Amino acid sequence: MSLVRVNTAFLHNFMATHEVTALQEQVTSIHQMLHSTDAPDFTGWVDYPNTLNTESLHRIQYVAQEMRNNSDIVVVVGIGGSYLGARAVIDTLKPQLFQKDNNAPEILYAGLNISSTYMVELLNYLEGKRVSIIVISKSGTTTEPALAFRFLKNFMDKSFSPDDVKKRIVAITDEKQGALRKLADKQGYQTFIIPDDIGGRFSAFTPVGLLPMAIAGIDIHKLTQGLTKAHKHLNNHNIEQNEAYHYAVLRLILNRKGRDVENYVSSEPNLYYLTEWCKQLFAESEGKDNKGILPIAMTFSTDLHSLGQYVQDGKNIMFETFINTGKPTADIPVPTLDGDIDGLNYLVGKTVNEVNQTVMHATALAHVEGNVPVISLEMDNLDEESLAYLMYMFMKTTAMAGYLNGVDPFNQPGVEIYKTNVFKLLGKPGY
Amino acid sequence: MSLVRVNTAFLHNFMATHEVTALQEQVTSIHQMLHSTDAPDFTGWVDYPNTLNTESLHRIQYVAQEMRNNSDIVVVVGIGGSYLGARAVIDTLKPQLFQKDNNAPEILYAGLNISSTYMVELLNYLEGKRVSIIVISKSGTTTEPALAFRFLKNFMDKSFSPDDVKKRIVAITDEKQGALRKLADKQGYQTFIIPDDIGGRFSAFTPVGLLPMAIAGIDIHKLTQGLTKAHKHLNNHNIEQNEAYHYAVLRLILNRKGRDVENYVSSEPNLYYLTEWCKQLFAESEGKDNKGILPIAMTFSTDLHSLGQYVQDGKNIMFETFINTGKPTADIPVPTLDGDIDGLNYLVGKTVNEVNQTVMHATALAHVEGNVPVISLEMDNLDEESLAYLMYMFMKTTAMAGYLNGVDPFNQPGVEIYKTNVFKLLGKPGY
Repeated sequence: MSLVRVNTAFLHNFMATHEVTALQEQVTSIHQMLHSTDAPDFTGWVDYPNTLNTESLHRIQYVAQEMRNNSDIVVVVGIGGSYLGARAVIDTLKPQLFQKDNNAPEILYAGLNISSTYMVELLNYLEGKRVSIIVISKSGTTTEPALAFRFLKNFMDKSFSPDDVKKRIVAITDEKQGALRKLADKQGYQTFIIPDDIGGRFSAFTPVGLLPMAIAGIDIHKLTQGLTKAHKHLNNHNIEQNEAYHYAVLRLILNRKGRDVENYVSSEPNLYYLTEWCKQLFAESEGKDNKGILPIAMTFSTDLHSLGQYVQDGKNIMFETFINTGKPTADIPVPTLDGDIDGLNYLVGKTVNEVNQTVMHATALAHVEGNVPVISLEMDNLDEESLAYLMYMFMKTTAMAGYLNGVDPFNQPGVEIYKTNVFKLLGKPGY
Repeated sequence: MSLVRVNTAFLHNFMATHEVTALQEQVTSIHQMLHSTDAPDFTGWVDYPNTLNTESLHRIQYVAQEMRNNSDIVVVVGIGGSYLGARAVIDTLKPQLFQKDNNAPEILYAGLNISSTYMVELLNYLEGKRVSIIVISKSGTTTEPALAFRFLKNFMDKSFSPDDVKKRIVAITDEKQGALRKLADKQGYQTFIIPDDIGGRFSAFTPVGLLPMAIAGIDIHKLTQGLTKAHKHLNNHNIEQNEAYHYAVLRLILNRKGRDVENYVSSEPNLYYLTEWCKQLFAESEGKDNKGILPIAMTFSTDLHSLGQYVQDGKNIMFETFINTGKPTADIPVPTLDGDIDGLNYLVGKTVNEVNQTVMHATALAHVEGNVPVISLEMDNLDEESLAYLMYMFMKTTAMAGYLNGVDPFNQPGVEIYKTNVFKLLGKPGY
């Protein structure tokens, strides 16, 4: 059974059923290619759920438990796909909007920018605390995480004994080669392996994501159960039975009708990093060769009072994907106000989440009225299993969408151009 | 002298000088209209810098000091323009990426969403702390802040004595009418006034923004000095001498060439809410009648490893506005690594911010190469004066841009449609 439903009720004004079914043949052949024995490079994530064995999960769990025991803070050093998967899952399932979870170390992130202010503040904050580091990089030479790790390595060497440092730094990197592999082996850090055939933005459920998630108290066994369900259910060429492909096809049809922007909408602020993860996954996989959909994200109703005017009434370049995650982490009834001065007593008897859900529904109707198509992805509730399912589904969606649109969803040539320019201007030897 | 320069060096491939000068006549007539005695409604912000008197600033300062003294936490209750101005200034000038400032109360925000999870976490977090509330709403009946204030009023009435509550709740609202005015007068809360002729998104430097800013330790006298400078310098019809209008004209020309998306880019994560404030200002002012530019924002280099692929190589629907704020809050030299395993020793001798600035410059060049126009707004450093200058400049830019594009920059008709739909579905009496 699928844990995510694709609701097309808000799309009737924008497309006809036959436009969807017309793509079945193409979908079938791409599906067969993705699942064939000579599948393209970097499709290791497709069958990865089958290869996750109890032993490797146990080792992750064991190292995570050690870090939970001996750390006040764990700093995850990585950029792009090296931190977004972990952060998406942690922030979504362990909302810590105002206060830290006392049972888990605080998880911080570094190496995801080159801000000196950020680095100075981070180093000050770490001072005197029991710190551990997870450094994540395939090559070990990506500028941002390598630079951040120089500072953090110095901090660790200064703050802890050599033996303690070895326990407190874990490298997640290539099995055999690269600067980080070399450094980790030389220094005796523990390591986990980034599989060769899985690109950064598809790596959330490899050790890259699973180790930080486990440290934060996420149940990684349940995550893998969700993955296994998704792997099984979404291995189906039929558009009407495979929500990942259905969603891919709907996006493609809307894009071909001139909708160049996709707005990922949620009504819960703790889903912010889930939509950030989506943005990378879809933009890097599909945004190339002058093609693709620009992914943006909004939290409603916050952004209805900011960008809502444009969505409703601006230029029609957008469609929306509502991520409706069902039952919230906590709910609370609307309180009465004596005298009803603010006129809200008509809401008494409802919970806050019921009001929130109604606002989302009313907004979808208003946006359709304003000529903005809305795809609604619906879940009953958000837990480890259903979140992993949703994220695997998105990976399958973007793989299908890329091929349907005639681009390779697994490369990122545009990222290389800016890197080369940077190295030239910085005077890197050889550039 | 202007505190913000508009650098057009990255625009040569995309427009010619005569396209800019061709708009001078239209700019002049809109300028005269904005500054005439029969200016349109909601232009009170234009000359507002002149009306800010020492007495009203002193009162804000006084109330802020009281709240600083008696509060661990100040909750700002407001949505859209009622919190974004304050948050933009506070987060930009008092970066608190990891740790709170011990000399100021923690500033939290509520009434900006309808998330039950958010509200439950907030109420738990406030328990046992010395809390004050600033509730901001012109009408007092906007659903989000009114609903949040019901919870917070109950919390305050339960946690503090009636006399203490009166000192701990400040309402910023209409001078005479509306639900919040009525409630504040009945309960004896202190109040500040939202001027009638200034809309929410233009209200950052009225008490709406100034009170929370002062509580956070922002020097509001220096802010007003920046405003006064901006008011004086940007009161000039000449496109070449008025950066606000120059920027407005560049945006319009790019938009007419099919650039429907503007990407606000900064290289410092603490500018996040400044760009959120920009997004509201520009989207609500210009996104109407099927027109306008969709504002999005990115932090580089973080998002170069996420959305960079699309910007470089995706569909050409975008232009970028780099906000280069000059000298950072803190800087630090790149450390050496023995053996140079990561190959970064060529950066030794530079500071982290020098690397960051070079990456920004190299990225602008790469994006221009990828057919993405880049406007660069440049400042020497970021303090109260220059930030207020920049924000006032943006207000003047969007006012000019709206009129140049044939829309009223001071209304927001699209926001009303969704509200009506919400009230219908929620069963509000009269809908």
